[in-house]
Amino acid sequence: MDGDRFTVTYILSAESEKEVNSRAESIRVEQTVEMPLSAVPAPGLHSLGRIESIRKTEENCRWRVVISYPNQLSFNDITQGINVLFGNISLLPGILITDCSDSFFKPLFSGPAHGIRGIRELLDNPNGGISCTALKPVGLSPQELAERALHFAASGIDLIKDDHGLTNQNSAPFTDRVRQCVYAVRAGEQKSGKRTLYFPNITSSPEKVLENAIFARENGADGLLLCPQLCGLELIRTISSEIGLPVMAHPAFSGSMVIHPDHGFTPEFYYGKLWRALGADCVIYPNAGGRFSFSEETCQRINTQLRTPFCGFQSSLPAPAGGISLESIPKLLQQYGPDTAYLIGGSLYANNLGFAEAAKQFNQTLQ
Amino acid sequence: MDGDRFTVTYILSAESEKEVNSRAESIRVEQTVEMPLSAVPAPGLHSLGRIESIRKTEENCRWRVVISYPNQLSFNDITQGINVLFGNISLLPGILITDCSDSFFKPLFSGPAHGIRGIRELLDNPNGGISCTALKPVGLSPQELAERALHFAASGIDLIKDDHGLTNQNSAPFTDRVRQCVYAVRAGEQKSGKRTLYFPNITSSPEKVLENAIFARENGADGLLLCPQLCGLELIRTISSEIGLPVMAHPAFSGSMVIHPDHGFTPEFYYGKLWRALGADCVIYPNAGGRFSFSEETCQRINTQLRTPFCGFQSSLPAPAGGISLESIPKLLQQYGPDTAYLIGGSLYANNLGFAEAAKQFNQTLQ
Repeated sequence: MDGDRFTVTYILSAESEKEVNSRAESIRVEQTVEMPLSAVPAPGLHSLGRIESIRKTEENCRWRVVISYPNQLSFNDITQGINVLFGNISLLPGILITDCSDSFFKPLFSGPAHGIRGIRELLDNPNGGISCTALKPVGLSPQELAERALHFAASGIDLIKDDHGLTNQNSAPFTDRVRQCVYAVRAGEQKSGKRTLYFPNITSSPEKVLENAIFARENGADGLLLCPQLCGLELIRTISSEIGLPVMAHPAFSGSMVIHPDHGFTPEFYYGKLWRALGADCVIYPNAGGRFSFSEETCQRINTQLRTPFCGFQSSLPAPAGGISLESIPKLLQQYGPDTAYLIGGSLYANNLGFAEAAKQFNQTLQ
Repeated sequence: MDGDRFTVTYILSAESEKEVNSRAESIRVEQTVEMPLSAVPAPGLHSLGRIESIRKTEENCRWRVVISYPNQLSFNDITQGINVLFGNISLLPGILITDCSDSFFKPLFSGPAHGIRGIRELLDNPNGGISCTALKPVGLSPQELAERALHFAASGIDLIKDDHGLTNQNSAPFTDRVRQCVYAVRAGEQKSGKRTLYFPNITSSPEKVLENAIFARENGADGLLLCPQLCGLELIRTISSEIGLPVMAHPAFSGSMVIHPDHGFTPEFYYGKLWRALGADCVIYPNAGGRFSFSEETCQRINTQLRTPFCGFQSSLPAPAGGISLESIPKLLQQYGPDTAYLIGGSLYANNLGFAEAAKQFNQTLQ
């Protein structure tokens, strides 16, 4: 592929070779000039996508199609890059994006600022599996949430994040919550003798996200939790580059993009490549075997994609979550390895030992 | 429903009454406290969703479920409101949101600032069908795009928008394009003797969107085109309230939310209620019979929902688009009525008459 173009790989649903040819032809037009070719004037012809290959897959009526596009289409604009990937064609059935060439990412994206290595340095934890939990439920006061943070930090939990449903409710306004939880985590560290990083949830409207991020940084938060699909994907990059704290990306509202086997994006591409490229230092995703629907193979592919060399970007820390219990940690640690943040939320609170004692065992199991 | 709660109506896929009960139970927990009920402390119990009704539909294995939530969950935060609607459960199959009570919208949303009435006032066009076209293709220079704008305005087109793929490419940088197209549209109005409103595409990263919007307003643009699913949904509200120009919302990247019959949102809810509530003065959607997949019934439901009385909000102007030809306008006008922006892009350029003459006929047909 010449240096000024990038490729997108799609799996298209089509019942015949004729149909897949026609679908590929319409995609290369839809995502670029968006008008009948007969009416495209000469300067517009350079904008067109170009079909590079069409191949049958082993699955019935599914075709692997590669189309290349000029980098000029997404010049200097990540959001427009995402539009070229899946803007209008998101409205068409039977289109799944499985990959893009590095030449899509390299000119636009910078990847994580901290990544696995940076988070390990902040934690002073060079090797072990990483423990992670969530402050919840919504409805508790800042004091009550901070008390939980204190116990978790005292128990040695590595990463504590707000539940992504904690925003600015009257029960625990953002500013009070952040101040009290930061204070509690620092107090807990005195008891544990180790570092704990606290990630408050800054998700809100785009302008408020930045305001929240600045407040959190100024008040001693160690990282930031963001739901990019709710706020706008490119906010990952904005927060990463302008605030400087590690960004933990939460998948709320992104399910429609990744759970349909013949539409949207593969989870490993979306979370593993796109969110990593955008700058997510840690990516939460719904783990297999819990209450969500990813297979173990999908989870392993996300893990691999987040950690593997990719455009020279830092690796991102995978954080499988959802229905993980203390008892499942030894097996998961074998499966996913130590470069993983094991996120146990609800089941830690429900543990018969009490959550502080359960958190201690959680950490011990990961060492 | 008591005033401090709102309801969400879902269609859930489930094979038995037992299964649907269990799914509804898990949704009311997942979207609120997100932890086992046994571990929820007293102050968190007030946050829980409450199952209001579960009824079989006429379709096999599809159940209409109504769950209510306390307004406190989304207090003063639209993005968090959307998270309560479909945050984590977006990752679960077989959940379609079809409606919310007005008590979801009223405390959070303001609706369009201009709406159909406001756009008609700006156009000085109180009754007729509204013509709309797009400047394209990407690859043309600002001069070439402005020349098209001049001809369209001289032909009397009501609304001219940038193609949503025109961002800040070297071929036509945003600032040059806006300045030259505004100038051309004003010149065209001198020839037509009527108003034409120009909507440049401001879609980019969230911070850049605001910068673009301010530049466009200061340089005489009449409205703004935004792809909210790419930038972040709540930017519709931000732009509407902070910039003051009419906002035209484009559906790029939103397809995954609305094209699955058993997952996401119905198009009439998503575009017709949510985007209207957010403040979209005009909503572009893919028309039936073109290259996209909505049925005519779906399009009619979107139209109806955008125009019908709803929480005291201004109505929004529906803009069906995609594969509409000049020849289809008389029939469409009968179907959709005059309170509609008929968006013809590509097929106007491809018309044998030449696009300027075709645009004249387009306008005449709508009067």
